[in-house]
Amino acid sequence: MITKEGITDWFKSLQDSICIAMEQADDSGGIIGKGTFKETLWEREEGGGGRTRILQHGNIIEKGGVNFSAVHGIVPQFLKQENSFSISNEATFFASGVSIVIHPTNPMIPIIHMNVRYFEMSTGAWWFGGGIDLTPHYIQEEDARFFHNAMKKACDKHDTDYYSDFKKWADDYFFITHRNETRGIGGIFFDKLNDANRKNKEQLFYFIQEVGNTFAPTYTHLMLKNKDLPYTAANKQWQLLRRGRYVEFNLVYDKGTKFGLETNGRIESILMSLPETAGWQYNFIPKADSEEEKTISLLKKNISWVNYKLED
Amino acid sequence: MITKEGITDWFKSLQDSICIAMEQADDSGGIIGKGTFKETLWEREEGGGGRTRILQHGNIIEKGGVNFSAVHGIVPQFLKQENSFSISNEATFFASGVSIVIHPTNPMIPIIHMNVRYFEMSTGAWWFGGGIDLTPHYIQEEDARFFHNAMKKACDKHDTDYYSDFKKWADDYFFITHRNETRGIGGIFFDKLNDANRKNKEQLFYFIQEVGNTFAPTYTHLMLKNKDLPYTAANKQWQLLRRGRYVEFNLVYDKGTKFGLETNGRIESILMSLPETAGWQYNFIPKADSEEEKTISLLKKNISWVNYKLED
Repeated sequence: MITKEGITDWFKSLQDSICIAMEQADDSGGIIGKGTFKETLWEREEGGGGRTRILQHGNIIEKGGVNFSAVHGIVPQFLKQENSFSISNEATFFASGVSIVIHPTNPMIPIIHMNVRYFEMSTGAWWFGGGIDLTPHYIQEEDARFFHNAMKKACDKHDTDYYSDFKKWADDYFFITHRNETRGIGGIFFDKLNDANRKNKEQLFYFIQEVGNTFAPTYTHLMLKNKDLPYTAANKQWQLLRRGRYVEFNLVYDKGTKFGLETNGRIESILMSLPETAGWQYNFIPKADSEEEKTISLLKKNISWVNYKLED
Repeated sequence: MITKEGITDWFKSLQDSICIAMEQADDSGGIIGKGTFKETLWEREEGGGGRTRILQHGNIIEKGGVNFSAVHGIVPQFLKQENSFSISNEATFFASGVSIVIHPTNPMIPIIHMNVRYFEMSTGAWWFGGGIDLTPHYIQEEDARFFHNAMKKACDKHDTDYYSDFKKWADDYFFITHRNETRGIGGIFFDKLNDANRKNKEQLFYFIQEVGNTFAPTYTHLMLKNKDLPYTAANKQWQLLRRGRYVEFNLVYDKGTKFGLETNGRIESILMSLPETAGWQYNFIPKADSEEEKTISLLKKNISWVNYKLED
């Protein structure tokens, strides 16, 4: 039987294995041991806590967080409203998961985000949610195809509808409405997966594990492939602007951030997703036919990245 | 009679005079004409538009915006909800005002923000709102006293209750709940001033003009007084973190930003408030007895800045 304890234990082991893989990959960028996760254990007054692991100033990773948390308590008001729950004031929730954001130093390496989570309530309701999405500072066709094919492969093993459904969901979710642009090239996103449709809890948990296990090999490939690409001061300036958009998304739209802030989560753990530096320039317009312009032109929904080829 | 056209014209003239004062003050930091506002005129599809003026890379000002806008249209849903208006779907609104945020290069000069605005609806309802608040990267007693005394003097000419009421309002409004700290040392903030209490529209408009006219002499004093203070790379690092908090406030809490985003305002004009660069470091804790620690210890409500003296 799948229990919340079993799921939570697996999330912890996922955090462990991803941290090892990230440190190993970072080592390959230069000095062994330069990029090491520092752990903070924290408790939440209202119940539960977490294990925050942050790597700053590695060889390849400038700032990255691989966080586990498991919190519980009375179902907060905002969740009831958002989900139109009509449940008693005493109803309790349990939520656990792993959240990752990695900001690399080299602007030729993309930013990545992953979240896998489990939620249940004393009413008996439960679901899984999560996703992985990629935010290249410079969109490279080959990497975009590679990333989306990795996502598709993970999905297809479990349900041949998943990739197209969850890819669309990611396009819609990771969208910066006020900029009318996607955060990056998307990926997969899903929420409220439960046994209402075809799959049972065990099958869904396997899928969650598949997503979790897909993260490290996918991202380390992109780290190692691009880590030695040269870049200019202008590339770094552009990276700052793209990170600024990342900040805008996370503070204005991201539901995980909102959930953390509204459930009195540990603020330094929640906002580990923000980059070490970010920037805003008034009315920045990239040069015609530049790589920056190309990237912006591709920040839109409904691009079929699995077989994407830029037209000549 | 006070009309919306008269108020709007005055807002435009305020924008003009403040831009001149800011450019003159910036000139005193070095090269004449280095800091010049660039203007963008914009129109809003649903009605109205604005005159955005941005100064980047001046002698003293790194990035500053002095914006005028006047927009109108159908009262948006979120405003009805927030204000519990029960009005017809055809009800229209008109809103105009001036918004300013100045980010200086030298971390010893504070960030400043001002807004003065007028709002009316086809239902006949109208009000003024606004305020000025100061966000020093390093809180200096003398500057804090000077700033709050300038605010008090402007308020006292119109109503001896205003300063204490609006100072408290600013403490509550410019508060970063998730950090449990104020954005800076506050100032004054007020909203929905109308003729329900003692003052008529003319008197309230005079007060708004007083606030608007107080901005330039107050801030140029702080610019000129601190412009030549030396600073270190560590001071710049700290400035990035304080700017990070500024970004958090503006994207998570600021009602002006929200109003702009939700009424389809011009995004580059709305987000001119964001600094050219900002930063986040995981779990940054300032050294004991440092100036950074002192500043954090003073980021709280209910400090009587008009006569503040740090205890020895």
